[in-house]
Amino acid sequence: MILEVAILNIKAGMSDSFERSFQKASPIIAAMPGYISHDLQKCLEKSDRYLLLVRWDKLEDHTVGFRQSAEYETWKQLLHHFYEPFPIVEHYSTVEL
Amino acid sequence: MILEVAILNIKAGMSDSFERSFQKASPIIAAMPGYISHDLQKCLEKSDRYLLLVRWDKLEDHTVGFRQSAEYETWKQLLHHFYEPFPIVEHYSTVEL
Repeated sequence: MILEVAILNIKAGMSDSFERSFQKASPIIAAMPGYISHDLQKCLEKSDRYLLLVRWDKLEDHTVGFRQSAEYETWKQLLHHFYEPFPIVEHYSTVEL
Repeated sequence: MILEVAILNIKAGMSDSFERSFQKASPIIAAMPGYISHDLQKCLEKSDRYLLLVRWDKLEDHTVGFRQSAEYETWKQLLHHFYEPFPIVEHYSTVEL
């Protein structure tokens, strides 16, 4: 399992609109091959900041499968105009504790 | 439920030592009142970077209960010298999707 992590900084005052668009975008990512689960977290300390966490079977399910899909174009149209700056996306694997 | 989020940048080459210390530190946080679960994630793109996620019942379980506890002194001694720079910790709440 790979965890996709993105801190999303939303243009000032557009958080409500972003959340509505994210509701529409959620089923897109949830239908992709290799998708396990995702959640959107809202920051308590900084308004208009979110954390997106998406769990994938393997890295390429996100970096190739999703990003090169036709569905990703719709995802982008729904969400990318809210971001400022554009987010850096990283991937993580769980350390066994 | 509140999600504590910290990006941990570890001094170059000290990741293995950090992981061993984190193994020792894990039971400390897991025993605190209001603690739900935690996990440590290792970044695929950037060596010596980790993501710590801790779930608490409420914000004050972390910011007051844990940080003002005697146990936090042990936590600090085990972990804080690995960080460079010292991490910014944020808290998030889940957006209902």
